[in-house]
Order: sequence, then structure tokens, then C-alpha cells
Amino acid sequence: MPYERDNIHRLTPYTPGEQPQRADVVKLNTNENPYPPPAAVLEAIRRVSADQLRRYPPPRAQPFREAAARLHGLSPEQVIATNGGDELLRMAVTVFCEPGGRGLGETYPTYSLYDVLADIHGTSITQVPLEDDWSVPEDFAARLNDHGCRLGLLVNPHAPSGRREPLDKLERLARAFRGVLLIDEAYVDFAEGDATPLLDPERGLDNVLLLRTLSKGYSLAGLRFGYGLGHPRLIEALDKARDSYNTDILSQAAATAALSARDEARESWKKVIAERARLAGALRQLGFSVAPSQTNFLLAAPPGDGLSAQALYRALHDRAIFVRYWDAPRLDDKLRITVGTPEQDDALLGAIAEILREGAGG
Amino acid sequence: MPYERDNIHRLTPYTPGEQPQRADVVKLNTNENPYPPPAAVLEAIRRVSADQLRRYPPPRAQPFREAAARLHGLSPEQVIATNGGDELLRMAVTVFCEPGGRGLGETYPTYSLYDVLADIHGTSITQVPLEDDWSVPEDFAARLNDHGCRLGLLVNPHAPSGRREPLDKLERLARAFRGVLLIDEAYVDFAEGDATPLLDPERGLDNVLLLRTLSKGYSLAGLRFGYGLGHPRLIEALDKARDSYNTDILSQAAATAALSARDEARESWKKVIAERARLAGALRQLGFSVAPSQTNFLLAAPPGDGLSAQALYRALHDRAIFVRYWDAPRLDDKLRITVGTPEQDDALLGAIAEILREGAGG
Repeated sequence: MPYERDNIHRLTPYTPGEQPQRADVVKLNTNENPYPPPAAVLEAIRRVSADQLRRYPPPRAQPFREAAARLHGLSPEQVIATNGGDELLRMAVTVFCEPGGRGLGETYPTYSLYDVLADIHGTSITQVPLEDDWSVPEDFAARLNDHGCRLGLLVNPHAPSGRREPLDKLERLARAFRGVLLIDEAYVDFAEGDATPLLDPERGLDNVLLLRTLSKGYSLAGLRFGYGLGHPRLIEALDKARDSYNTDILSQAAATAALSARDEARESWKKVIAERARLAGALRQLGFSVAPSQTNFLLAAPPGDGLSAQALYRALHDRAIFVRYWDAPRLDDKLRITVGTPEQDDALLGAIAEILREGAGG
Repeated sequence: MPYERDNIHRLTPYTPGEQPQRADVVKLNTNENPYPPPAAVLEAIRRVSADQLRRYPPPRAQPFREAAARLHGLSPEQVIATNGGDELLRMAVTVFCEPGGRGLGETYPTYSLYDVLADIHGTSITQVPLEDDWSVPEDFAARLNDHGCRLGLLVNPHAPSGRREPLDKLERLARAFRGVLLIDEAYVDFAEGDATPLLDPERGLDNVLLLRTLSKGYSLAGLRFGYGLGHPRLIEALDKARDSYNTDILSQAAATAALSARDEARESWKKVIAERARLAGALRQLGFSVAPSQTNFLLAAPPGDGLSAQALYRALHDRAIFVRYWDAPRLDDKLRITVGTPEQDDALLGAIAEILREGAGG
């Protein structure tokens, strides 16, 4: 008999995107920013001393919290630093969802980690299908309330579609929902606006939690640093479930430096946004149907009369061009393609054109 | 009404030892190694490139797992890398303990984080008092079995007493226990032996999990890197509850370099062990009762006719000398003192002598 709990024994763990160690792969499968992190980040890392490594770090990453609070016009009590955005998600499930029920509500599709975290915790999952245009149904909150959900999870801009819901809609959903609404803003740096205005005390909302990560916008996926923004009472509750020293001194130093170098990071966001428009246009010219995106990726369906999305995914993989494919409803006819550099995207476009030609000829 | 679960709302979070930012503190309160980490660690950190930071790290820290497996004569499937030893503890509670009961068993006293993790998970706690000499009662496993415990937690060498249980006793306990026995070897680098022989397949034990950390022996408390060693089936179960990328590229590089520089780290262990003997002797000369220790700290009771341990703790704190004090049964008449450099320990001893003289005169 296994020693682990039944729900763990039965669990299908989260499958991260493939992380090849080969340098020759055109890697457009896990939404990394193709441009390097701000130079100040490496400098901050290299300034960390042997003595700082020897000692425990500030347990709550207080210097980072203060920097993030300044950046967003909030107080440090509205900020929690986490070991990647994923840790914030895990803590939110642990803190707000009851084992056995009164669990989380989400859209379908969404970030596939949410279900894994719910299964680990042994809580319930309520799925609300997105509309055909990937928008969140207006009755999302009502349906979560009907199921007794304690945590609602929205990725905004949405993954894997790229769609962004406007602030007034998010506010309506938050007011209508009786649990905590976590808005996962992993991709917000590539979008036209964020949801921080919902945290303004004058709005009187006490149930909104925003997730941020430095993985995408700040080109620091290797660093594992994210943070949560929300009402001080939500932050305090999450803090109780935090591992005692959850972020290390190197990532604290690097993350604080990254925020202070935001203008440099923004230059990469502008390049990605411009390239996103070019890549979407070029894919449409190849016959793809491409959803409008406010992220650093595109959800694109290949032309219906040619190769299937799965066959195209495999043919690209054979050429060392990695994109993401899911064998799942509403996604199995599409590819999620990270916006790369113009050179990477040209390699992708050239390979797709060639594969489609071969497919047509073969 | 709060949004968080009742058990979180009621929870008293873990209190880490004080981490002063002042450099002039003689810091003997959180068991850091007083000597710097191996030089190769800083070099490895400084070799991490912008491109490595930009990309996701190896999700399971495979290069580290292979290095740790080589070091301990195990296979990589017997190793899991974690964000500090604390993450391994949290995952073990999540994976093996049932919410609502069938929880963890531990000694009293022990590492105070265990109870906090059990309370977050909402599982039961069974406490077995240590004998007067801080040894684990021979019926520890039987009592855990009686309470249906799924996870047994032993710190060995023990914190906060410093006592080490021998291998044959650990083996008896593991064979008698029907759940997973986690042996927390945070301080093993300062001891005369470890429990890795229990993982030898020829012993036929499938329920032993060892916790290691780089915080103490490798002088890397700031890094947050630990690992678990155990049967591949236990490691696989833990891996399911791991955050998707739980360790970052910097700490993976630093930790792998640390293991390869073990001989250099061992020089610091030798110095700490020699200084531990000197400090214990000097404290005994001042009238303290000091438990034998195989760690990098001493549990020491001040002479009964003078200041209380709490008063001494405060008087030392006023002089910027930090040690650890708990207002808890069997501990409230003692101080836990980290073994520092000879200079730090001389400062401590001088201050204690002075305080005791003043106390006697005042």
C-alpha cells in the first residue's frame, strides 16, 4: 500500500513545457521573453556577498516589498513575495479552499496548474467555459457562488488565448463574487493596462488578489520570483502559509533590481508587442486563424485544409522549433506560439511555410 | 467574516529567529555556520548567464540530483531538491498526512515549524515527550502507530538539545513504524555519522526519508536549498506536490558547486566541532549545565542560583549578543547558543561572566 494520500497517489502532476538543454532550439513553447533581463539584475546578483549567503535572508523580503509597493502605489502590507507566481497560487489554494469542497472556480480553458493544485489540496473544482471569443461569461461569479467556491481564478490577459478583460468587467466580477478573486497577471506587462486600480481603498474591495511574476516581463524565468498584491488582510492570511524563508537572498536582490530597472525591461515589452503584431499578420497570411493577444504569445489555428495542429507541432519539433500543443477540447486544433525575436519568428514562419507546402505536395 | 479557512485564521505562524540587519550583532541565535561558504559557490553564482536567468530552470534540478546521488552513493531517483529543507517538510506533511486526522507524530521538544505545518494542513499532531536525557523513547513508533500517524518526524541530531540517536535505534524505529519516518538531518554535518545506510536497498526499508539542508554545513542559509533522500517511491510521491519549478537556476548552480566543494566545507565543520568543545567547557566553568551536542549549537542552562535564562537572554540582547530563548516547558530555563567563531564566543563568554557578576552584586 502506498504511503501517500489517495488523492496524491491518483494525481496526474503538472507537465511543464519542454525545457531543452540544447542551445540550437528555437524555443517558442514556454513564453519566455526573448530579450535578456536588465543589466542591473546581473550586477545585483554579483554584488551578493559570501556573508549574505551565509546568513538567513529577510524572511518576508521586506526590501522587495517596499520596492514593489512604491512601484504600484501601494503599501508594503499589500505585497507578498513568493518563490515564483506558482507559490502564490499554491498558497492561495491552501489558505482559501477547504479540503473536501468549497474549493476553487476557474474558466475553461485556463492555466493547467490550477487543477493540479486543487487535486493536491483535495478541494473541489468548478469550471466555467469561456465564450467563443474567449471572454469570461458575465455570470462567472454567480456560478462560482452557486458552487460555494472560496477562490476564483482568472488569468488576465488570458492564457492560452491572449485575450484581456477590461477593468470594469473585473470589478463587476469581484463585487459579485463572495470568495477571493485571484487575477493572475503573469502576462500583464505586454497588455494595455493592469488591475491595480481595483486595490485602491476607495473602491472598497477586500477580495481581490493580483499575481505578478518576473518570469515573463523581466526575462527572469530562471529566477523563480513572483509576488501577490492585495488587501492587507488577504496578504496576512497568505503570509501564514508561507514557508518560513520562501525567497532567497539572491532572488530578493535580483528582483528588487529588476523593478528598479523597469524602464529597461519596458523596452523589451515594446519590441515584443511590435513583433507580436508582425507575427500575427504573417501567420494570418499563411492561412492561420489567430486570436487577438495582449500577451507575449499567440493562440493560432492552422488552416483547416492542411496539416492538423498536432502534426504541425510535431513537424516543427523535428526541426528543433518548439511551440506548445495541448490535446484538449478547444485547444487541440491550435498551437500556442511564444513571440520570439524577429529572427526566431522568421525561422518559425519559414518552417511552417515549408511544412505546409510539403504537406500539400505529399 | 475572513476569507481564509478557520484553521488558517486561528493559526499562530512560525516565528523565525531574529534576523538583525545590523552588522555589529554577535549573532548566535539561528545556527548559521560562522565561516563563509566554499569559494566555488560564489564563482558558480557569478557564472550564471543572462540567458540562463531568462529561461526556465531544469524543473527537477536534475544536475543537482545527480551530484547529490554521487555524493551519497544513491541514484538520482532517490533525491529531491527543495527550496530549503522547510519545503521538504511542508511537502511531506501535504503528501503523507490526511487533513482532519491520521497526521504527524513528533517528539517534544522538536523543531517548532512541524506543528505550524500540521496546523496549516489541518492534520493531527501526536507528541511523544523525550526522555530526561533527550533520547527518543523506545516506544516512539508504537505510540505513533496507536494514533494512526502517517508521518513521523525526528530531528537527528536533535534540535534544540544537540543529542544524536545511533543508527541501530533509528533502524528499529523505522521498522516498527507503519508510516513514513522523516529524519531531519539539518545538523548532520557536525555529527559523527548520518542515516544514509538506512537507504541501502539491502536493508529493505521503504519508509525512510532523510532531510538535508545546505543552510548549516555549507554556510548557505541565504540560499534556501535543501534536499530529500529516500526510496524512489517516496521521492516520486513528494515530487507530485512540488511547485512546478521549485528551485531556481542560481541556487541549483550554487548548491551543485557546494557539494563538489565538500572538502572545503568540512574544514569549517572541524573548526565548529573543536570550538563547540571549548565553548561547552567554558560554559560549564561558568556554572552552566550543557547537554552533549553533535550539532553546531549548545543547549545550556545557566547556574540555578543566578539570573534566570530569560533574564540572561535579555541582558545579552541588550549587549547586541543574540542567542535563542523559548518560553516553553523544559526549555524556559535554558539558552540555545550557536557555536560561533572563537572571537564571537569569547565576546559571549565575557558578557555572560560580566552579567552574572553584576547580577550577583545587584
